[in-house]
Amino acid sequence: MRKISPLLYSRNYVKLVDQRKLPCELRYVRCRTAKDIFTAIRTMKIRGAPAIGVAAAFGVSLAAQRSAKKDTKAFIADMENTIHYLSKSRPTAVNLFWALEAMKQEVAMNAHHSLKQLKERLYKKAVAIMRDDQARSIAMGSFGARLIRSGDCCLTICNAGGMATSGYGSALAVFFKAKEMGTNFEVFACETRPLLQGARITTWELKQAKIKTTLICDSMAASLMKHRRIHKIFVGADRITMSGDFANKIGTYNLAVLARVHKIPFYVVAPLSTFDRNLEGGSDIPIEFRAPEEVTNLYFKKPIAPSGISVMNPAFDVTDAWLVCAFITEQGIIKPPFKKNIKKIINAKR
Amino acid sequence: MRKISPLLYSRNYVKLVDQRKLPCELRYVRCRTAKDIFTAIRTMKIRGAPAIGVAAAFGVSLAAQRSAKKDTKAFIADMENTIHYLSKSRPTAVNLFWALEAMKQEVAMNAHHSLKQLKERLYKKAVAIMRDDQARSIAMGSFGARLIRSGDCCLTICNAGGMATSGYGSALAVFFKAKEMGTNFEVFACETRPLLQGARITTWELKQAKIKTTLICDSMAASLMKHRRIHKIFVGADRITMSGDFANKIGTYNLAVLARVHKIPFYVVAPLSTFDRNLEGGSDIPIEFRAPEEVTNLYFKKPIAPSGISVMNPAFDVTDAWLVCAFITEQGIIKPPFKKNIKKIINAKR
Repeated sequence: MRKISPLLYSRNYVKLVDQRKLPCELRYVRCRTAKDIFTAIRTMKIRGAPAIGVAAAFGVSLAAQRSAKKDTKAFIADMENTIHYLSKSRPTAVNLFWALEAMKQEVAMNAHHSLKQLKERLYKKAVAIMRDDQARSIAMGSFGARLIRSGDCCLTICNAGGMATSGYGSALAVFFKAKEMGTNFEVFACETRPLLQGARITTWELKQAKIKTTLICDSMAASLMKHRRIHKIFVGADRITMSGDFANKIGTYNLAVLARVHKIPFYVVAPLSTFDRNLEGGSDIPIEFRAPEEVTNLYFKKPIAPSGISVMNPAFDVTDAWLVCAFITEQGIIKPPFKKNIKKIINAKR
Repeated sequence: MRKISPLLYSRNYVKLVDQRKLPCELRYVRCRTAKDIFTAIRTMKIRGAPAIGVAAAFGVSLAAQRSAKKDTKAFIADMENTIHYLSKSRPTAVNLFWALEAMKQEVAMNAHHSLKQLKERLYKKAVAIMRDDQARSIAMGSFGARLIRSGDCCLTICNAGGMATSGYGSALAVFFKAKEMGTNFEVFACETRPLLQGARITTWELKQAKIKTTLICDSMAASLMKHRRIHKIFVGADRITMSGDFANKIGTYNLAVLARVHKIPFYVVAPLSTFDRNLEGGSDIPIEFRAPEEVTNLYFKKPIAPSGISVMNPAFDVTDAWLVCAFITEQGIIKPPFKKNIKKIINAKR
């Protein structure tokens, strides 16, 4: 059950797996400053909604330890600037803002302590956010694994595994737990263009867990569904609104539509930190558009398109709630009607 | 209107654009034997259903010119062996078998001629098949172009352009003709994993024709449709059955389902040589599965998946007739009911 964590921590630095190098190299990069963390998130050395949140929390802690400010007021201003700065690293996954908000509250609640104590509290809070994320992953895995039957072929997209969280996963946690329970099932992994997180990271994690895995191109999922080769779909999420509309890796909406047409259950696996209490509908979720070169060049030996060609590269899409069968969270499974049941579980959590 | 042809011919050799090198290099490879043609088709130096048919016809002609057989009977046996051999190059596109059947009939019809005359007839027949294919392309373009309105955003997958035919195209012929007619429209091109014919060849052809083009990953089409950015879809075909079920590049079925869900007209553009008179339903079409390395390695600097991972790599999928709005052929537009109307146009052609 112990997985490789994407993040190793200490007071003065964190080491992140450079996920752009996987599966060819398992290389850690050292981050000493909030700027290092910002860059690691923006360039996707670390990615996955929960993992980004954890990394950002450590970014605040690193800034705290390094802060030269001598009085509390200046220190707090420093932390607020850092939090604001880190919030600009990527726009879509809400876990980033959730974790930064938690760090902000930690600053506010401990403002009466000495600077030394305050810094220690921020470090401890970042560690707590990470450990909490691990516990959430394991709980999600347990709830979800019960949905997998012997003989099932499951489909997933992108990487919602250990590398996307603090070491166990969201959608992949379901697979890891089902495997531990001895269920005999297999997984089809969509390669997930443009950055190929499915091909590079998901297959690598599933292979380590000795789960039977087959890699496909994203465009092949429809044909597999037509031939009844897919029985269940499990995906992660970057932001879930209070109506149940949610954003996830580009291609997720496509799978959800196909699932509905082919009558295949479609499950979203995400911790409650992925729910955005401030958004009602999916059209309000900000979608990040990334550089054309991710499509035309990255991971390719040569350019794969004529130079100067226009490219559209949205990193995420939004799936409507009615296409979702259930949300699997660390607090249990949320079934429709989503508006009512999401509110219930979110309020119970508070 | 003059396009680069994927095939330049003479009696003793043909030169093919090595389409695996596009768009970085426009390089011709010389084929002197039927074996050269077989290899070029199998390794996809030349691809696209109509272009494969034309190349195979020239493969027979090349074998004829080089045949050392001194009597007609031995020569005919030689040709029949060559035709059988070439028919094994790829399984799905029916134009290959159609062109080889035409060459076989040419042999049979001219068996009473001298060997020299017979060889000349086979060369002339291959040239005629190619010229005929060009004329069909232009006719398809004219019928299809009338469907495009000013302001339309059209979507296509793979390459159904000049490189897939004898220089003008099937689905792309529609775009070329619409451009010539002065219609103001734009095209989104799906990159088409695994071999990226959309990114590499379609965008290159459309750019040459000065058609506004945007490249997307295959998984992004659904999101574009959701946001009403796609108004019409035009695709080619590798084999169309008498019911209207058809095979085309993997990912086509996905687009057809999405088109239906989002109420977007979905058109198939193909010459009558793509209709298989012997097949009733799509489940009878043989689907080629190609090497895993096309998914895990080709076009990539490094492997993009762990070594030894299972891969499923079907080159085509089958789309059900009910998802098709109309077939655009050189004889006109075939609308539903397809069973009746396909039979009518095929029989009229005979």
